[in-house]
Amino acid sequence: MIVVKVGGSEGIDLDAVCADLATLVGAGESLVLVHGGSHRTNVVAEQLGHPPQFVTSVSGFTSRRTDRQTLEIFEMVYCGEVNKGIVERLQAQGINAVGLSGIDGRLLEGKRKGAIKVVQNGRRRVIRDDLSGTVETVNVGLLHLLLENGYLPVVCPPAISYEGQAINVDGDRAAARIAAGLDADTLVILSNVPGLLREFPDESTLIERIDASRAMDSMDVAKGRMRIKVLGATEAIADGVGRVIFGDARIPTPIRAALLGQGTVIS
Amino acid sequence: MIVVKVGGSEGIDLDAVCADLATLVGAGESLVLVHGGSHRTNVVAEQLGHPPQFVTSVSGFTSRRTDRQTLEIFEMVYCGEVNKGIVERLQAQGINAVGLSGIDGRLLEGKRKGAIKVVQNGRRRVIRDDLSGTVETVNVGLLHLLLENGYLPVVCPPAISYEGQAINVDGDRAAARIAAGLDADTLVILSNVPGLLREFPDESTLIERIDASRAMDSMDVAKGRMRIKVLGATEAIADGVGRVIFGDARIPTPIRAALLGQGTVIS
Repeated sequence: MIVVKVGGSEGIDLDAVCADLATLVGAGESLVLVHGGSHRTNVVAEQLGHPPQFVTSVSGFTSRRTDRQTLEIFEMVYCGEVNKGIVERLQAQGINAVGLSGIDGRLLEGKRKGAIKVVQNGRRRVIRDDLSGTVETVNVGLLHLLLENGYLPVVCPPAISYEGQAINVDGDRAAARIAAGLDADTLVILSNVPGLLREFPDESTLIERIDASRAMDSMDVAKGRMRIKVLGATEAIADGVGRVIFGDARIPTPIRAALLGQGTVIS
Repeated sequence: MIVVKVGGSEGIDLDAVCADLATLVGAGESLVLVHGGSHRTNVVAEQLGHPPQFVTSVSGFTSRRTDRQTLEIFEMVYCGEVNKGIVERLQAQGINAVGLSGIDGRLLEGKRKGAIKVVQNGRRRVIRDDLSGTVETVNVGLLHLLLENGYLPVVCPPAISYEGQAINVDGDRAAARIAAGLDADTLVILSNVPGLLREFPDESTLIERIDASRAMDSMDVAKGRMRIKVLGATEAIADGVGRVIFGDARIPTPIRAALLGQGTVIS
C-alpha cells in the first residue's frame, strides 16, 4: 500500500501525477491519493474579494487563517475544482476514482483548535474564531470498503471536528495519518521542489537520505511549507510507515521517480 | 427507499431539509439525497467574471450553457460549497453522510450531447462545444455499498460521459434515474414553489393530484424549471418508481410534509 500526497502549489503537473498513478494501479499497486489546493485557493479567494491571510504560530509554523468564509472558499477549490478535476483525469485514464473530503463519512476526524497563538508584527496574539484543527482519527474502514470494491480514494481536507464542524487541517499531516492508518509501506509527498534542500532554494543542495531517527533534526534546515512536511514525515514514521519520500511533482512519472529514490528518502 | 431531490434556487431552507432528513433516518428510513446549486452557481460565476448564460432548446427546455470554465465553476459550487455544506449539516445531526458527484465512481454515467439546437433571438443555432448531457446509467452498486455500511449518499451533478469527461446534467432527471435504479417507492422533488401550479406563480392554483398516466399532459401548464421536473417525474414513474411528489422546500419539515401529500402527488 502506497499513499501519495500531491501538493497544491504552482508548477505541479497534475496530469503527470494522474497518468503515473494510473500506470501504478494498472501494475496492481494499491494506492490512495491525497491532494492540496493552496495556490488555487489563494487565487479564487482574491477573485471573490476575500484575500487569503496567513498566520505564524509561536512554534514557527505558517498556516492559513480560516474564518467561515475562507473555509467555504477552501471547500469550493479543494473539494470542488481540484478534487473533481483529479477524479475526472483518473476516470479518463480508466481508474475508478472516488473523491472524498475529510467530512465525508467522517473520514478525517480531529480536534478543532480552541485558540491559536500567533505572532503578528513581532507581537503575540490569540485568535479564537479560527476553524482549523488537527486530524487524530482516520476512518480506515471507509477507505478499505472503497479499495476492496475497486475504487481509488482521492482525499482532501477539510476534516471534521468531534462536534461535526468542518475544520481546515494540514494535508501533509492528514496524509501521514492515512498512511499510518492503512499500514502503508510508503508515503510519497510530492511538491514543487526536488525534496528537502540543505540551502533552500538551491536545488543542488538536495538531501538524498535521512535516517528516520534523525528526521526531526532536519527541521533546522526545512523552510516554510517544508517544515510541516518534515513534521508529517516524522509522525508517519513514528506510527509505523516504512519510509517517507519527498519527491518532485514537476517532472514526468513523478511517483515512480520518487519510489526509485529520486528526492529525499526518510527511512 | 426514498430519494429526495432538493433544488438550488433561492429561498430553499437547507437547514430544514437536513434536520428533516435526520429525523427520517433516525426513524429507520433508507434515503438518498440529491441536490442542486443553480442560484449559488449564478452568483459565483458573476463574481468570478464569467456570468451565467442560459439557452433554450428547440423543444422548449431551458438549460445552462456549459463551457469548460462554467463546468469548473459549477463543480466548485455543487461539489464544493453546497455538497460539503449539506454533508456538514447532516454530520452535525449525527448522520454519517458521504458526498459524491456523478463523476465519483462513475455514479452517474451518460452521453454527452454532440450538438445542442437552441433558439436565440428567435433564430435557430447549433452549439457544438457544450459540456452537457443526459444520465443513462446509475452505479447503484456504489450507492448500495454505502447504504449497507451505514452511510447516507448525498449526490450532485456533474455526471461523467462514456469517454470519461465531466458533463453537466439535469439534477431532477438524475434523481429520477437514481430513484428508478434503487427501486425507490417515492421520489420527492423539493423546490421553492408548493408544487405544480395551474397558473404560475399563483400558489392558490396548486394541482394536488395527477394520475401517472396523464403526467405528461401537465407539461402544458408547467413553466420554466418545472417543465424538466415534470419530465423527470414521468421518466421515474415509467421506470417503476411508485410515486413522485413535488414539495415545498421553504417550509419546516419539508420532506415529511411532502410524504403526507402536501404538494403535487403523481402516482
